[in-house]
Amino acid sequence: MIITIGRQYGSGGRYIAKMVADQLNYAFFDDELLKLACQKAGFSEEMIRQFDEKPGNSLLYSTFVNSAVTTDNLPLNQKLAMAQFEIIEQLARSGNCVIVGRCADYILRNHPDLVTVFIHAPGEFRAARLEAYYGVPRQLTDKTMKKHDRKRADYYNFFTQKKWGASQSYHLCLDSSVLGVEGTAEAIVAYARLRERLN
Amino acid sequence: MIITIGRQYGSGGRYIAKMVADQLNYAFFDDELLKLACQKAGFSEEMIRQFDEKPGNSLLYSTFVNSAVTTDNLPLNQKLAMAQFEIIEQLARSGNCVIVGRCADYILRNHPDLVTVFIHAPGEFRAARLEAYYGVPRQLTDKTMKKHDRKRADYYNFFTQKKWGASQSYHLCLDSSVLGVEGTAEAIVAYARLRERLN
Repeated sequence: MIITIGRQYGSGGRYIAKMVADQLNYAFFDDELLKLACQKAGFSEEMIRQFDEKPGNSLLYSTFVNSAVTTDNLPLNQKLAMAQFEIIEQLARSGNCVIVGRCADYILRNHPDLVTVFIHAPGEFRAARLEAYYGVPRQLTDKTMKKHDRKRADYYNFFTQKKWGASQSYHLCLDSSVLGVEGTAEAIVAYARLRERLN
Repeated sequence: MIITIGRQYGSGGRYIAKMVADQLNYAFFDDELLKLACQKAGFSEEMIRQFDEKPGNSLLYSTFVNSAVTTDNLPLNQKLAMAQFEIIEQLARSGNCVIVGRCADYILRNHPDLVTVFIHAPGEFRAARLEAYYGVPRQLTDKTMKKHDRKRADYYNFFTQKKWGASQSYHLCLDSSVLGVEGTAEAIVAYARLRERLN
């Protein structure tokens, strides 16, 4: 089974994803691991910093995934996205795992045992987490959340032709402020086990 | 505990809500019961048919709920909405229950033990249900779903100042096609029990 987890900035989604992976004894892949994988594939750190999560032209992506067209002539930002999407497909073939972000829900949409999750929370809950865990001063939290969420939404909407954060784009959406981050992880594990049992 | 369930037309949300209520041994209130309650409160069936779920002026609603203003001068559609909202508040005071639709999540937003749920499903799943259970011919399912969902969204967005179907408007959103209607009811019951345990 593959569990993909998208999340609003500051909602605790990455931390929840790690707990879910630990509790299910699944492999865990987040942005950092994907970046390392891209470096192995020949992308420099500088390139990744400059071009990561910048959308380009979705028609080119469709062409790429639907045929044997090479990425040689794509702009660098799209080359990087394509490399990450390929790595996500490889990860999915290697066994049970939890993947955070990067349109993994869309890339793996035809996988027979896929659970797609989105984590969100009210602004106040996220601002408190950003202050406590990332040291973002409260007067900057609103701006920081908006900037990061805008970037994630643009990237997702561009490549997937779905809407980031819309309930209809995912199997399961949860407000992490209701059960807390540990409780939310528990709810996702329960859902994944129910899915496994009913299949 | 109060569980409110909003749903896309044809997603099985009403049926799921009934199963959740039965499994938790909670009272169950859906549109029909609310309509009956309104008739008891003096609204005729004709009035309900004509004015039900038609939004009006949300400022008037805020005025109404935040003060002792009477509904005497409101247009009929809003009088009916106000009567239903009052009935929802009464139901919530009478004990554990599941309430389907009617902005109940918003009306009861300050209730300490509230779980707000939204059920959706892909068009194909919903069309097949509408055909099988409601006899809607396949060539009309798209139009029927759009019409009903538009009406629900307009009503919800008007009174709540939130967005119908947006993940951020609810604690828990589920695609009922993934676990099926029975499995989705089971997932909601599991979530409610987890919520109860963690509180």
